[in-house]
Amino acid sequence: MQLAKIVEKLGGTLVGDGSLDIKGLGSLADAQVGDLSFLANPRYTSAVASTLASAVLLAKDWKGECPCAAVYVENPDRAFAEAALLLSPPPVGFAPGVHPTAVIAPDAKLGEGVTIGPHVVIQPGAVVGDRSVLVANCYVGHEAVIGSDCRLYAHVSIRERCVLGNRVIIHDGSVVGSDGFGYTPDKHGVWHKVLQLGIVEVGDDVEIGANAAIDRARFGKTRVGNGVKIDNLVQIAHNVQIGDHAVMASQVGISGSTWIGRHVQLGGQAGLAGHLHVGDGAVVGAQAGVTKDVEAGSFVSGYPAMDHRKATKAHAHLMRLPELKERIKKLEDLVTALQQREDKA
Amino acid sequence: MQLAKIVEKLGGTLVGDGSLDIKGLGSLADAQVGDLSFLANPRYTSAVASTLASAVLLAKDWKGECPCAAVYVENPDRAFAEAALLLSPPPVGFAPGVHPTAVIAPDAKLGEGVTIGPHVVIQPGAVVGDRSVLVANCYVGHEAVIGSDCRLYAHVSIRERCVLGNRVIIHDGSVVGSDGFGYTPDKHGVWHKVLQLGIVEVGDDVEIGANAAIDRARFGKTRVGNGVKIDNLVQIAHNVQIGDHAVMASQVGISGSTWIGRHVQLGGQAGLAGHLHVGDGAVVGAQAGVTKDVEAGSFVSGYPAMDHRKATKAHAHLMRLPELKERIKKLEDLVTALQQREDKA
Amino acid sequence: MQLAKIVEKLGGTLVGDGSLDIKGLGSLADAQVGDLSFLANPRYTSAVASTLASAVLLAKDWKGECPCAAVYVENPDRAFAEAALLLSPPPVGFAPGVHPTAVIAPDAKLGEGVTIGPHVVIQPGAVVGDRSVLVANCYVGHEAVIGSDCRLYAHVSIRERCVLGNRVIIHDGSVVGSDGFGYTPDKHGVWHKVLQLGIVEVGDDVEIGANAAIDRARFGKTRVGNGVKIDNLVQIAHNVQIGDHAVMASQVGISGSTWIGRHVQLGGQAGLAGHLHVGDGAVVGAQAGVTKDVEAGSFVSGYPAMDHRKATKAHAHLMRLPELKERIKKLEDLVTALQQREDKA
Repeated sequence: MQLAKIVEKLGGTLVGDGSLDIKGLGSLADAQVGDLSFLANPRYTSAVASTLASAVLLAKDWKGECPCAAVYVENPDRAFAEAALLLSPPPVGFAPGVHPTAVIAPDAKLGEGVTIGPHVVIQPGAVVGDRSVLVANCYVGHEAVIGSDCRLYAHVSIRERCVLGNRVIIHDGSVVGSDGFGYTPDKHGVWHKVLQLGIVEVGDDVEIGANAAIDRARFGKTRVGNGVKIDNLVQIAHNVQIGDHAVMASQVGISGSTWIGRHVQLGGQAGLAGHLHVGDGAVVGAQAGVTKDVEAGSFVSGYPAMDHRKATKAHAHLMRLPELKERIKKLEDLVTALQQREDKA
Repeated sequence: MQLAKIVEKLGGTLVGDGSLDIKGLGSLADAQVGDLSFLANPRYTSAVASTLASAVLLAKDWKGECPCAAVYVENPDRAFAEAALLLSPPPVGFAPGVHPTAVIAPDAKLGEGVTIGPHVVIQPGAVVGDRSVLVANCYVGHEAVIGSDCRLYAHVSIRERCVLGNRVIIHDGSVVGSDGFGYTPDKHGVWHKVLQLGIVEVGDDVEIGANAAIDRARFGKTRVGNGVKIDNLVQIAHNVQIGDHAVMASQVGISGSTWIGRHVQLGGQAGLAGHLHVGDGAVVGAQAGVTKDVEAGSFVSGYPAMDHRKATKAHAHLMRLPELKERIKKLEDLVTALQQREDKA
Repeated sequence: MQLAKIVEKLGGTLVGDGSLDIKGLGSLADAQVGDLSFLANPRYTSAVASTLASAVLLAKDWKGECPCAAVYVENPDRAFAEAALLLSPPPVGFAPGVHPTAVIAPDAKLGEGVTIGPHVVIQPGAVVGDRSVLVANCYVGHEAVIGSDCRLYAHVSIRERCVLGNRVIIHDGSVVGSDGFGYTPDKHGVWHKVLQLGIVEVGDDVEIGANAAIDRARFGKTRVGNGVKIDNLVQIAHNVQIGDHAVMASQVGISGSTWIGRHVQLGGQAGLAGHLHVGDGAVVGAQAGVTKDVEAGSFVSGYPAMDHRKATKAHAHLMRLPELKERIKKLEDLVTALQQREDKA
């Protein structure tokens, strides 16, 4: 697409050759000749000079030099997203219909306009809401309920009696409703399974990444609130409660019965012990090990997790521990010398 | 179900209205009007006053006030489990039979009363024991052996020649027998695959969570002992040996050839280096990084993992490091002042 | 197989009974009577005396005693690998052909000699190169391209438009091309999905373990270079770039847009923040938390990751913090006493 045409659609001021044919998109470092790129994060300022891109979207007030065509816009990040839609192939769609290889129990209920892809299995009593798409090889257990306008990618399992809201997206291989990890030891240390009789209830507008696992409750419900976003390979144990609009990055692990407030943010690989309370709006840093309740609105990190500023300071000091030890050694020598002088005096 | 009827079945002393209709179950915080709840963990004592539950199971010697019907029992936890069975829908069952969409090699051997669900694939030479259930979309590789009374949920892979004992439960998406991670670099730093010729052997009464991965041995066997319980998203590398009745929480990672003793407990997200020996009954804390052998019966935590009490103390001090540094600074000033006074004297 | 025959094929010097019938293979600790074992890692020297193996491969210059037949060879590790090939059943093969239960779009292109196993789904516009094997229940999305001589084990998902090179191996349950984790919050803290319009491009000779997840780019490409080896349960976020011949152990997590150089090695459970640059040949220790760029050729570990030697020293001191604190306390008392003496004088 001609650069001038893109600028016409996005708005903004073009400095350079509008007749350029833009073929693709890329970050400053990644872009090739013929690509459009953008500068949104100041971290990448120095990458402008060396980019191979043929045109770059820049903030209106940007003062630097640009080695190629420059387009000055209000918000380069948003403009790039719009340009991407102009230049990218449209997202893949799935035509409604039930594939003949799908195995659907006679008493399962399918809404209007659903897409049930190849090799999907839907067990007795299950419900799939209007316009929901089960891409391929998905499993929907007995009496499970999937809302409307959901999309389940390949190899997703929704286990028996679990409930998904509307507009839920689940990426390939994720599992909703596996048994909680519950055993009681006998006097020989042999573990006996505690039946996991509850379900998982997922709210509206939730997105779950690939190969995540959310366990069903021992009794009652493991609950994922509305608007929650869960990244790949996240573990959510039985009876966890997650408030609306919480987000958690990849490989987070939440132990049983922990309560996560609304708008909480959990960094990648963070681990939370069981039976904790994480207040609304709290932020937990990546790789943090949370061993006690977290106050609403606070920011904790480190292991064991503490106030983030304290943790950062403490870890900075950790690196200087060998030096501190030297200073203590020197002080000891000095004090000993002083004592000896005193004793002599 | 009427509360009086539940109390009749569980035993215990009822204080309150036995004619109440109990409709569901929930934790103290989670329960709704009409639900039965319980107090087992003293941590939740304060939740009794604010619960919406219509009845609560309490320990015989509990002295607090209860805002609703109270049932005093020997063991509230166990009583609640029994009540749950009375009130929950029965666990889902799978009728014996082979689904017509399953693809089963002619020379595979199926025991009596097996359930082979839709889209299951069983390769040549494989064996499935009596009454085992393969729920749907499972893969059983060439010459793999599955014992009796096993249950494999959707999308489980048992790779070629691996062996499962009896009464093994594996949740959705887990993989038994993927290749170990073994390569040798050449002089250009190019990695060449080392063939992984061994298998995985899983004992009796093992349960494996969702989306876990257990690698086959380079040679010989990766071994999971009897009664071992493995949570979701756990990684077990090639040639690991796991003793009977060990348990490991979610997202644990065990590197190659490490030996885990009987009754060992590994906390969530703990990581163990390769070629280590973890003695019988040892406990490894959540998120611990284990870099050397762990003695039988010991409890280690932290990174690098050390005696748990030492680790806890060390980490508590870590937080106070900035304060320690201030104290050192102050000492240095005082000592300098003392020296100057001495020198003048 | 007779021991003498094995020695004939491997080369080396036999001390012991060549007529022994060798039935299997195992590590020194694992081997049974009738097995062949080997000593390559000096760590295991003491295990020779107690092995049950009937024969052991030893280095030419090994001086210790051997309780069974000994075979002295140039390289015991390599000799054992060769012996394993002699004694192991051959790796499983898959005959070319398209299974009748596979669902393949009419316009998908299949190369010569491909194996498309049971219940595989191949969407419109997809391409599978010559001799590639899709074992079973795999999903290949719209317009995805799989090179030649690849092997995809059961339940692998290659999402729309993603591209794999030649000789790529992917183990069971892994996902290539799930959506990146991208949302923008509105003023109410509600997260709105940012379309993930890019793809994943995987080079030649890459191996990916079980249940890993590699996200597609927001725009452009998430890129995995040639010869890269990725272990089980690894997370690679959108727009990550991985240089040729990098290796990463299980449960590693790499955040969005991070750039990993050639021949980089990442230890198990290491986590890398987003938008970082990890230079060629760098090594990141297991469980490290990398929060800033890593120089080429350096070795970092710990949290936050720092020079490995410094980190090791700092962590060793961490354990001795309570003792340091005692020393500070004692110094304070001494200095106070000295001051009082001075003041009196």
